[in-house]
Amino acid sequence: MNEFVVTWGAPRAERADAARNRRHLLATARQMLAEQGPNTLTMDGLAERAGLGKGTVFRRFGTRAGIFAALLDDDEQAFQQQVLSGSPPLGPGAPPLERLIAYGRARTGFLIAHGDIARAALDGHQPIPAGSQSPISQVHIRMLLGQLDLSGADLDMLATQLTAALDGPFLLYLAASGTTATPGTAERIADSWQYLIQRVCRA
Amino acid sequence: MNEFVVTWGAPRAERADAARNRRHLLATARQMLAEQGPNTLTMDGLAERAGLGKGTVFRRFGTRAGIFAALLDDDEQAFQQQVLSGSPPLGPGAPPLERLIAYGRARTGFLIAHGDIARAALDGHQPIPAGSQSPISQVHIRMLLGQLDLSGADLDMLATQLTAALDGPFLLYLAASGTTATPGTAERIADSWQYLIQRVCRA
Repeated sequence: MNEFVVTWGAPRAERADAARNRRHLLATARQMLAEQGPNTLTMDGLAERAGLGKGTVFRRFGTRAGIFAALLDDDEQAFQQQVLSGSPPLGPGAPPLERLIAYGRARTGFLIAHGDIARAALDGHQPIPAGSQSPISQVHIRMLLGQLDLSGADLDMLATQLTAALDGPFLLYLAASGTTATPGTAERIADSWQYLIQRVCRA
Repeated sequence: MNEFVVTWGAPRAERADAARNRRHLLATARQMLAEQGPNTLTMDGLAERAGLGKGTVFRRFGTRAGIFAALLDDDEQAFQQQVLSGSPPLGPGAPPLERLIAYGRARTGFLIAHGDIARAALDGHQPIPAGSQSPISQVHIRMLLGQLDLSGADLDMLATQLTAALDGPFLLYLAASGTTATPGTAERIADSWQYLIQRVCRA
């Protein structure tokens, strides 16, 4: 499981003041998001609200989209911690089928809740790059499939297919510009994930 | 099934000489592809080989990538005809589960065989736009799922998930720049599709 710990982890050698600035900027950005939504959050506005120089914000994030990418990355790490060491059935300790269902449900909820941030992280220009979707999902799904008795399955390929099945509906939702999350969307995707995974994995 | 007939069909009002030029240009482009591969096919080269003016080629395709997009579109229509009115199990007349398996196998083969053209149609700049993947697959898979006894399933969402599962491995393959199709790739994806769809659809 170390692959995505390394991938997602913050640089170890970050200096203490840089780390403090980073945490302060992310916390400030979260406050501004909660108050105003993503559309009015700018580099200048963030610097002013945080009481830091524009140069500091620029060096940290590069672009406005970089702020949102950093927020996503921060939340991804928290999500990953729940999967690696949180309570079952999302965390370790539950049977693999239950963990697969819980993972898909939690991941869907996470992605839908982060739809606005994910869209802003893409800066409105760049389509979602195909092939870069959720390595964390693929590694985790592959591991849990390996704990089930799926004789005859090509587990690597099946994990790729199920990861795509998990991400697909969300990517469609994300690509539909202007769509806002309705309470039912995440639930509907999650229910269908559970149906799919139960049928694939039943003995 | 009319949705994608309309989507993919050539414009009806195309004039006879324009249609003749189009067929001639596509046939010439196919010859050049077969002889030289996609990398050396240019707008100027195509005009010269076809004995037509550069303006004609430009008006028809717009850009070099447009040539490849037109080739793909042409082959998509032929593929679609096999699904709509070809022999079973890809075409009508076989049980829905057999048609689902045959469709995924044929679609995988089609996509892998067209990997070079698809990459060139993207012009090397634009990532594959998320959400624009294979509407033909989704409509067809949804129709066949409806003929099975999948009580409790959200058939629209399940079709979205299975379409993503079908396209996902190919999109990863396409995103891996420089990869050339190996004979085993299509077979491996197709076998795993069959495994997945059999488990999802068995009674």
